[in-house]
Formats: sequence, structure tokens, C-alpha cells
Amino acid sequence: MHFTLEHRDANTEARAGRLETDHGHIETPIFMPVGTVGSVKAVQPRELLDDVQAQIILGNTYHLYLRPGTEILKQAGGLHAFMQWPGPLLTDSGGYQVFSLADRRKITEEGVRFQSHIDGSRHWFTPESVVDTQRAIGSDIMMVLDECPPGDVSKEYALTSNELTLRWAARCKKRFAETEPPYGHHQALFAIVQGVVYPDVRRESAKRLVEMNFPGYAIGGLSVGETAENMYAMVEVVTEILPKTKPRYLMGVGTPENLLENIARGIDMFDCVMPTRNGRNGMLFTSEGILNIRNKKWEADFSPLDPGLDSYVAQTFTKAYVRHLFQSKEILGLQIASLQNLTFYVWLMQEARRAILDNRFLAWKNEIQPRVSRRL
Amino acid sequence: MHFTLEHRDANTEARAGRLETDHGHIETPIFMPVGTVGSVKAVQPRELLDDVQAQIILGNTYHLYLRPGTEILKQAGGLHAFMQWPGPLLTDSGGYQVFSLADRRKITEEGVRFQSHIDGSRHWFTPESVVDTQRAIGSDIMMVLDECPPGDVSKEYALTSNELTLRWAARCKKRFAETEPPYGHHQALFAIVQGVVYPDVRRESAKRLVEMNFPGYAIGGLSVGETAENMYAMVEVVTEILPKTKPRYLMGVGTPENLLENIARGIDMFDCVMPTRNGRNGMLFTSEGILNIRNKKWEADFSPLDPGLDSYVAQTFTKAYVRHLFQSKEILGLQIASLQNLTFYVWLMQEARRAILDNRFLAWKNEIQPRVSRRL
Repeated sequence: MHFTLEHRDANTEARAGRLETDHGHIETPIFMPVGTVGSVKAVQPRELLDDVQAQIILGNTYHLYLRPGTEILKQAGGLHAFMQWPGPLLTDSGGYQVFSLADRRKITEEGVRFQSHIDGSRHWFTPESVVDTQRAIGSDIMMVLDECPPGDVSKEYALTSNELTLRWAARCKKRFAETEPPYGHHQALFAIVQGVVYPDVRRESAKRLVEMNFPGYAIGGLSVGETAENMYAMVEVVTEILPKTKPRYLMGVGTPENLLENIARGIDMFDCVMPTRNGRNGMLFTSEGILNIRNKKWEADFSPLDPGLDSYVAQTFTKAYVRHLFQSKEILGLQIASLQNLTFYVWLMQEARRAILDNRFLAWKNEIQPRVSRRL
Repeated sequence: MHFTLEHRDANTEARAGRLETDHGHIETPIFMPVGTVGSVKAVQPRELLDDVQAQIILGNTYHLYLRPGTEILKQAGGLHAFMQWPGPLLTDSGGYQVFSLADRRKITEEGVRFQSHIDGSRHWFTPESVVDTQRAIGSDIMMVLDECPPGDVSKEYALTSNELTLRWAARCKKRFAETEPPYGHHQALFAIVQGVVYPDVRRESAKRLVEMNFPGYAIGGLSVGETAENMYAMVEVVTEILPKTKPRYLMGVGTPENLLENIARGIDMFDCVMPTRNGRNGMLFTSEGILNIRNKKWEADFSPLDPGLDSYVAQTFTKAYVRHLFQSKEILGLQIASLQNLTFYVWLMQEARRAILDNRFLAWKNEIQPRVSRRL
């Protein structure tokens, strides 16, 4: 994996970059559709390429570990082959999902013990095991195991947790160095900065991880209930420390507005289930604003779903038709909404990149942000 | 609409024909995917064209009348425009769905009164109203209102019901003649032969409808619980009477075996929810046989979903992957299964047509029928 910082915006911290992987390159800033269990929900791989124009997608190690399991993934030749996704893949470490199991998991120095949400079976994730699992998945970009504490823990807890996360990061890095990628393509391991909403814990986390010299850095533990201002403040604190020449990935964020604000603060990569999950509930992101397609106001609106987006679903189907599909609980409604929202998110990143390269990111952001954030 | 009988098989009653409509032509024998409420479940219009290679699809008047309703359909410019399906459309009359409402409907000479399954609201279908509704839908082929009695009614009931159906057919024909197609393309009205499993009632129905001179004839009231032998016997009784030069449509049938047996008896057109509905339950029809993709035996089977079918889903995804999608309740599983089954059904009709044109239908049927019917 190789990252090139191509351009820095004249008026903000926004960056345009290029990330090379053995499965193709990624132009940043980028949004990564989430393919939780080996499929981006309701979207086919060819649609991710042709409609969404996704350049990289994400898989969840926790879910893939439980189903289909590493044995099947190994036999398939990794997740790329299993799901027939030809482009780059990033996996999280599984930590986030395990920690959200609440009373069904226990953290120790060694790792985290948990019970499957599917059948209650007992499992262990350790820094070493999640590296092994991600090797079996074959993701181009792997993540270290981290503890992701709730947004409201004390500073004392944050400090203790952060030290554990740092020790785990070192163990992941060691295991990574001792193991080989099994499918003939390179894999990279990113670190994850934690520290809740405490600036000096965040700084300590970033500083120590940078000393370990990872090829890329994620910022975790945000978008977990804190205010947007706190999120932006933490991103500022961390990006000041992270090396300019390495990619920065803000995990699990967020709304179109969140993405634009964080690009302005120097973030390169995003993932979020919002476009697909909210889409399945009838919330559509468009170049003209956000609409709840279930509303009666769209019943006889025969304008295209999104006049400003040049894609099959945006141009082919009317708001009235998509509303009808949701009213009638037709699966096609979920498919169209998922395609629309993902295409919009990726398009927004493409537009941001263009604006950055032209040194007009700030003016562009000030114009588009209220437009895409308004409720129609 | 114009039908040309192109060829009759040398050894069976099988026929190859061509049905011209203002939305394109249809090569028979043909299978019509069912788009109940204005969408073929889990399948996009472009996929119907490019993957399934559907030449005509079906809409259900009962469902479309309730949702989105004729007012919206009129404003949209008809169902073709509303759902963005460019090819021919056939609609049923709504009778079948209304009669299956059991205690929520009442039949009189005038028509049938019923309560919506959605909100309990009260409605009337009459021979005239269903013509009007299908005019508003804009289907290329419309159906008369018929009474579709259960498969186990007495002969006396069948006779009385048949007379009502014949009077309704005449009223539909009259209304059809008095009204204009609203969207600038032609519409045709097909009759429906009824008569339960009583050969002489079936004969009387067919004879009297042929005297009324419709451009095409459907056979209704089969595949409602009678044995396959009874179904085939009724088809033979009726096709003997129906004019050779007009298309014959067997409604709601059936398994691949049912289709092949009925083609051998001179049927040209089929529709059935089986490929989509059973597909959504994990039953996959392939060129090698029928498989329940949920079975553990497919867990590590990395062969293509259907090696014998040249389509995106058949060639791209493995049985192991599709099983994983079903195990994980991923929507993509429903999409792939629907595409596979519809593509298989349409492919089977294409192959049948080729065999008919080559006068080798019987030999081909004897070879393929056990193969596609076996459980894998």
C-alpha cells in the first residue's frame, strides 16, 4: 500500500490523495460503503462499481468471523473472491462490535471474551487473533484491535483504556510482521487513535501510535453520542499530530455535513452505515437535500429521484414511484434507496476532491453543505 | 396486437409464435415474470431486460388498483412510465385476487364487492370497471373479469359460474369496444376459459368464448389444487377448441415440468410467482436441477450458482456465497435468487422455442425435464 498526498487545499486542512493497493487505487477523500457480512446490503458488486463508483468497501471482522467463518473464507480464497468484489477492501478489527455486546463480553489484558449475538457461543478476540482473522479475510487494509469505550467515561477510564489499546496496537503490529498475506496481494495494518473526548488522551494516543510508525491512522471512538463540536475538536487535536504523508480514516462517520466538516480538518477516509441503513428506512440523501420518501408529499411527484445525480436510479425512477415501493414494502424500494444514498455519498466525495484540487473547497463547502443538509 | 403462428412441432402440439405489440414483440413460448404491485420483486427493470431477458411482464390489477391507485397511474402516464418498464405488459383482471379474499368478498350478477386486504375499505369490481382500470394501467394485454371457483366445487356450481363468466366476458368486450386506449398505444383484451375440472364445462366455455372472437385466450382456474394430470387433461380439452392462429395463455402455472408439459399441449404463454416467491425462500431453479440453497451441503461449494446458464448471477456467485447470504438474511440473497430463477425460466422457454423450431421438442423435453426437475 502506498499513499501519495497530491494536494492540500489553500484555505483549509482538506487534502486530496491517492492510495495504491494491489486491488487498485483510491482517490481521496473517499467514502467506503459498508459490507457488513460480505455484502453491501441490497447492492450487487457490479452496481458498486458501475453505479455507486465505489473505490473501496468495508467488511466487519466480527460478523465475518462468525459467518461464514474464517475456514470458509480461506477455502474461498479470501473475501474478495467469496463476495466477488474486485476492488480494495478494508476491515475493522471486530473490536467495536464486540464492545457493543455490553454484558456479553469481558475485557482482559489478553483480549476480549464474548458471546456470539447469533447463537450465544463463546469466543476470544486477541490482538493476535484479529490479525490472523483479517489475514484470512484478505483485506487490503486491516485494523488493530482497540478498546472503544463509551463516549461518557471518566478521564481516568479513558487513560487506562488508552494504555491497553496502545499495548494491543503493538501486539497487532508484531503479529502482522510475523505473518504473511495468504493470497498473494499485500495487506497493510492501520492504527486506531482513541481517547474519548479528552484532548490530552487523544494527543497521547496519536503521539505514541505515530512513534510505532503505521502506514495509516484511523480515529476511532467518535460518532458514539458526543456532540458534533466535540467530534470536530477531537479530529483537530489528532490531525495536528498525525503525519501529513499518511492517510487518515475517521471511523463510522457520518452525515454529509459531518463528512464535509471533517474533510476540512484533514480526514481522507470515511465509512458509515447511515446511507444504507437510513435508506432502507426511506431516508434519501440527494444533491438537493434529504427527503423522507414515505411522506405523502411525494405521492404524485413525478420528478426524478435526484435530478442532480447522473446515475441510473437517480434519473430513471420518480419520487412517486419510489414512495409507492416503500408504501407497498417492495424490496426494490430498498435497492433503489441504497443505490441512491451510496451513489450520493461517493459523488459528494468526488466533488469535494475536485474542489480541493482547485483550491476552492471552502467556497464549495459553504455552498453545498446547507443544500445537501436541508430537509425537503 | 398481432399474433403469428410461426411453426408447429412435428411430434407434439408445441408451437412457436410471435406476438407483436406497440411495446415490442414477444417470441413464444414465453414466461412472464410477475410484477404484482408495479415491481417484479427484488428485480430492477434494467435487469429484467439485460439479465432475465424478459420480453413481457405481468401486473396485478387488484394490487395496482389499491396501490398506487388508478389516479396516480393516470398522472404517471400508465404503468409502463410509472415503473419504467419499456416492454409489453399484461394485466390480469383482479378477479383471481378478489375471489381469494374468501369472506371479504361477495359475488353478484353486477360484479364483485370486496374489502381491501390493506385497510378493509370497500370496493366494487365489475366487468366494466376492470376494463376501465386496465385502460388506466395501460397494459398491452388486458384480461376479462371472470369468476375463478375453487378446484373442488360441484359440476352444478361450475356450470352456473361458467355462465356468469361468459356474461361478464361479453360485458368486458362491450366496454372495451366503447373505450379508447389513453396513452397512444394499442391494448388488446383476452378472454379466460373456466370450467374447473369438468371437461364439458371447459368445452362449453371455450366454444362460447371463441364465438365471441377474442384476439387471445387464457385458461384460468387451473393450478389451484387439482392434480397435474387433471390440469393437463383440461388443457388438452380446451386447446382442441381454441383457434390455432391465436395465442393461448395458461394462467398461474407452474413448475418447469408443468411448463414443458403444457407447451407440448399447445400453450404459448405462462406466468407464475413460483420463481420469485420460492427464490426468496431459498429454492433455486438451475439448468442442473432444483436446490435448496439453505442446505449445509452448499456451505463450501465454490462452483458457480448455475454453470449452465450464461448470466451475471449464475456465473459470478458461488453456491457457498449465496448460501451464506441466505444464512445471514442478506437482501442480496433475495436479489440473486430472484434473478437466477427468472433467468432460468425465460431461458427454458427460449430453449423450448429453439427445439420446436427444429422439430426436436419431444426429444429435448425428454432429456431436459428430468434434469431440471431433480432435487440436487
